[in-house]
Amino acid sequence: MKIAYLGPEGTFTEQAADFFVRSTDHLEALLFPLSSIEDVFEAVENNKADYGVVPIENSIEGAVNTTIDTLIFDSKLFISKQLTLPIVQNLMVGEKNAGGKITKILSHPQALAQCRKFINKSYPDAVVEFVSSTAEAAKLAASCDGENGEIIAAIGSKVSADLYDLTTIHENIQNNKNNTTQFILLTKANTSLPKAGCSTSIVFSTEDKPGELYKILDIFAIWDLNMTKILSRPTKNRHGEYVFFIEISGYENTSDVSDALTMIKRKTSFFKNMGSYHTINMG
Amino acid sequence: MKIAYLGPEGTFTEQAADFFVRSTDHLEALLFPLSSIEDVFEAVENNKADYGVVPIENSIEGAVNTTIDTLIFDSKLFISKQLTLPIVQNLMVGEKNAGGKITKILSHPQALAQCRKFINKSYPDAVVEFVSSTAEAAKLAASCDGENGEIIAAIGSKVSADLYDLTTIHENIQNNKNNTTQFILLTKANTSLPKAGCSTSIVFSTEDKPGELYKILDIFAIWDLNMTKILSRPTKNRHGEYVFFIEISGYENTSDVSDALTMIKRKTSFFKNMGSYHTINMG
Repeated sequence: MKIAYLGPEGTFTEQAADFFVRSTDHLEALLFPLSSIEDVFEAVENNKADYGVVPIENSIEGAVNTTIDTLIFDSKLFISKQLTLPIVQNLMVGEKNAGGKITKILSHPQALAQCRKFINKSYPDAVVEFVSSTAEAAKLAASCDGENGEIIAAIGSKVSADLYDLTTIHENIQNNKNNTTQFILLTKANTSLPKAGCSTSIVFSTEDKPGELYKILDIFAIWDLNMTKILSRPTKNRHGEYVFFIEISGYENTSDVSDALTMIKRKTSFFKNMGSYHTINMG
Repeated sequence: MKIAYLGPEGTFTEQAADFFVRSTDHLEALLFPLSSIEDVFEAVENNKADYGVVPIENSIEGAVNTTIDTLIFDSKLFISKQLTLPIVQNLMVGEKNAGGKITKILSHPQALAQCRKFINKSYPDAVVEFVSSTAEAAKLAASCDGENGEIIAAIGSKVSADLYDLTTIHENIQNNKNNTTQFILLTKANTSLPKAGCSTSIVFSTEDKPGELYKILDIFAIWDLNMTKILSRPTKNRHGEYVFFIEISGYENTSDVSDALTMIKRKTSFFKNMGSYHTINMG
């Protein structure tokens, strides 16, 4: 079995892919990193991978827009499992630079946003630069030789520190200690089977009338379905037109959920069912 | 009068600040760039500026999360005007590099996301790197001397091309031609006056029950108020708890809007009124 994940190695998505493997019987699975979220979707759609792992939402930063938009507009894949991982960021330098004055801090824009308060307080004079991933930042910090007094630190996970033999200077530096990210396991077939305690995700838009949303939410209320996620995304046509991504508690083939979804499908101009799945919580 | 805007110079936010000035009688206004959205809010709150200009939503990428979160969680400012600007991105190089083979493309992550399809199709072999702004990218492209065959191109606005004397190689390269960004003019006092055709923005959260949202939207339906924007943001406490940012058509002191807002305030655990304002549409 092959699992594609949003790389590079050493990021939280690899950890999530690893947990997904351990939660199944497929311990011999081959994990391989791809360089973009779109590439992971494409690999699963074209049978280059059986499963794909991408982040979908962070508890602080919110939705991962590329994942949501690809699910909504471009993909035919289903969600077969969901995982919530705690996100712990650290400030790390190459072993030989430990103790030196840090002049530059590198990381992915999202990780930098997560640690903004720490950086402003503890390293107000350091130059802060974006790189494409926390693993790329770790790699650059590891190869920094301290020449001209420049010491590069990276912000990233413990896994990326281990991968590049970095020394951790400060642990747990993210602004919010309740920082978790949800990852989804994508598959081509809707393998939805009757499951206790599972969730179902749908997306829909409501004919150019954002005010119509309450009628859809009323349907959930009638069938007493609990909404556990609601995200709005622009339709990309014009300002004020939205597509909604909603997660409810319940299995899609029980009669209440099934009836509600049938009704919503009839009342919306665009509708897509992402399938039913279990959520594993490591937070 | 002093207006702080999200810099640096040459970005779409400066264009927006310029339009705000021209739409008022304050043509002698002093515009000055600040390096982060939070800094713009802070400058207005601490009387270092009379007004602040920041982006709030892009028609493709969605909400600008830092602006929404600062409005929701940290600021006491009001929205006094809103502006919708068309976003046109271009690929530009230093004059001496025009005609050379582009090996590296730089821009802000959001501008790169907006032009992903063009880059993948026309420059699949170029190295793509994040920098902190489109203006920073333009500056680096201008200073590239083509040594070792490295030619750096920047993606950004026409204004940034002019600012750094760049040559435009490709115009209008963003994925979606309906790409617009909304900017807001922030002020300390709620200067809300009776206005025809204005909008009102509010934020609220609904006591740990996302399913309760439909009751609030029902209030808008009762008073026949049209919702023109709805964004959900995590409360930063735990997954599944949201704060909603909603814009409705109407002035806050007309009786229908006022009655609806009073009721919503009573029905929500957290409520904030951002004021009423006009939207100028340049799109």
